[in-house]
Amino acid sequence: MDIDALVAGVIGGNRRAVARAISLVEDGGAYLERLSAGIHANTGRSATIGLTGAPGVGKSTLAGGLVAVARRHGLRTAVLAVDPTSPYTGGALLGDRVRMQSHATDPDVFIRSMATRGHLGGMALAAPAAVRVLDAAGYDRVIVETVGVGQAEVDVASATDTSVVVLAPGFGDAVQVAKAGILEIADVYVVNKADRDGADEVVRDLRQMLALGAERPWSPPILTTSATAEEGIDEVWATIERHHAWLADSGELARTRRARARREVEALAAARFRAAVALAATDELADELEAGRLDPYAAAEELTRRVLDGR
Amino acid sequence: MDIDALVAGVIGGNRRAVARAISLVEDGGAYLERLSAGIHANTGRSATIGLTGAPGVGKSTLAGGLVAVARRHGLRTAVLAVDPTSPYTGGALLGDRVRMQSHATDPDVFIRSMATRGHLGGMALAAPAAVRVLDAAGYDRVIVETVGVGQAEVDVASATDTSVVVLAPGFGDAVQVAKAGILEIADVYVVNKADRDGADEVVRDLRQMLALGAERPWSPPILTTSATAEEGIDEVWATIERHHAWLADSGELARTRRARARREVEALAAARFRAAVALAATDELADELEAGRLDPYAAAEELTRRVLDGR
Repeated sequence: MDIDALVAGVIGGNRRAVARAISLVEDGGAYLERLSAGIHANTGRSATIGLTGAPGVGKSTLAGGLVAVARRHGLRTAVLAVDPTSPYTGGALLGDRVRMQSHATDPDVFIRSMATRGHLGGMALAAPAAVRVLDAAGYDRVIVETVGVGQAEVDVASATDTSVVVLAPGFGDAVQVAKAGILEIADVYVVNKADRDGADEVVRDLRQMLALGAERPWSPPILTTSATAEEGIDEVWATIERHHAWLADSGELARTRRARARREVEALAAARFRAAVALAATDELADELEAGRLDPYAAAEELTRRVLDGR
Repeated sequence: MDIDALVAGVIGGNRRAVARAISLVEDGGAYLERLSAGIHANTGRSATIGLTGAPGVGKSTLAGGLVAVARRHGLRTAVLAVDPTSPYTGGALLGDRVRMQSHATDPDVFIRSMATRGHLGGMALAAPAAVRVLDAAGYDRVIVETVGVGQAEVDVASATDTSVVVLAPGFGDAVQVAKAGILEIADVYVVNKADRDGADEVVRDLRQMLALGAERPWSPPILTTSATAEEGIDEVWATIERHHAWLADSGELARTRRARARREVEALAAARFRAAVALAATDELADELEAGRLDPYAAAEELTRRVLDGR
């Protein structure tokens, strides 16, 4: 594979090169490492936005609406729809992309669903790499949409500059959001389907929940949008832009991006080690465990020793 | 700390020793390693049962009912209520333990809520260690109850011999269960609150979902229980026992326990490595990343080299 040509294509904003590069991210492996090194100097310019929330709250609709506003401002925009794959089935259950179709023919909009196939560490590590591809390709805004509110989605959403949590009446209450660890990562709350019964209660419960939490330098606003996301969407956009400006002005942008990069490197190193460990875990060690001659903690120490010595 | 005395206390079934040992598991660290080595030869006799399902489906009620049946059969029983802690708050939101209170004075029943404080790798690694403590203490049955249906809960539940997935009308449908990767780990399905509207639909949807999956040597039965879990509970117990007998007779019990032990050791080794990596991740490496002189994949390689050389 001609990685130099692919890197040049990505940096030049060529759509086919970008699509191919994201497939490389999904696959993982040596080509991805060369791609990552090649594009790295061209990254760091996109503002990235995470959209998280239970299935059915209208994240895709909101994403489509945000793309429309971004385009009115003349901004090139990419949407990455991410599904942390079940470790058991390997299947991806992707949401409704219908609302996105209106942007499909716009050359300055790039929309892509993503699953992981071979990337070590799964989606939590693959998604930031894919975002960097879109960043290097010159998209001014990159929206990362996840399917649900589990830990994997929290990990993906917390790797963006501005994390938007979407709720809707009848699709999980504020307590569930709190349990998923979402409260702590949200920079903006959107209560969608605000014309439906129960929307006021969702806003009220959320406000109470937030009042219980610790004071933070950025106090996340709670916005409402209508079921079709045509009402309130400009306000959501403006709030995301205001958050990004606050990040930049306060020095938080540099600080959090640095912390995120560091966490990502640590997780990548751990994923590599784990792959090496899986190779070194011999049947003989399993025998020792089964016979009760080793307990799991002693076996882990022995395994670590073998991997390190074998390197 | 006198670990030898603690080990002897656990093996002798002393309740205070068991409680203290589980606290050691929560804390992680060197004492836990000595405890684990000390009790290991006395483990492997308990039949372990996982209870997973969305908050509100009635898992605690079901656990209380199963304990009552176990006691009628003269079996010593432990319940471990596990909450994979939010990585952000460190807080645990534990469910309703009220239904358990009737067993609180029974000397042959042990009930414990558990969070992780310092255990490397979090609850997915701490829970099996706590189960081994209860196993070594002579509990014939150990029930592990989790709070929700996220990945962390799936990891915990799939580390038991018999995994019971609980649903109820109005608390998440079969599609959500499928998305959580729960379908693949369930050995028994229980549709609780079967007297409520919508219970038949839950059973029907579940049956259709299962029909779509691959044929498995054990075909997971779908059982129903009433809201108070007094109806149908004997059948759930009998089915769990039948599943365990099938595991033992077919050779699956030895095979899956061996595979589980191996996965656990690999994960423990990876968690240790990750801790070492976090120590070695210097500010200088973060500078290199920020300046664009290193990309995350190259930085991960550099970090791995440093950790291994420093060992």
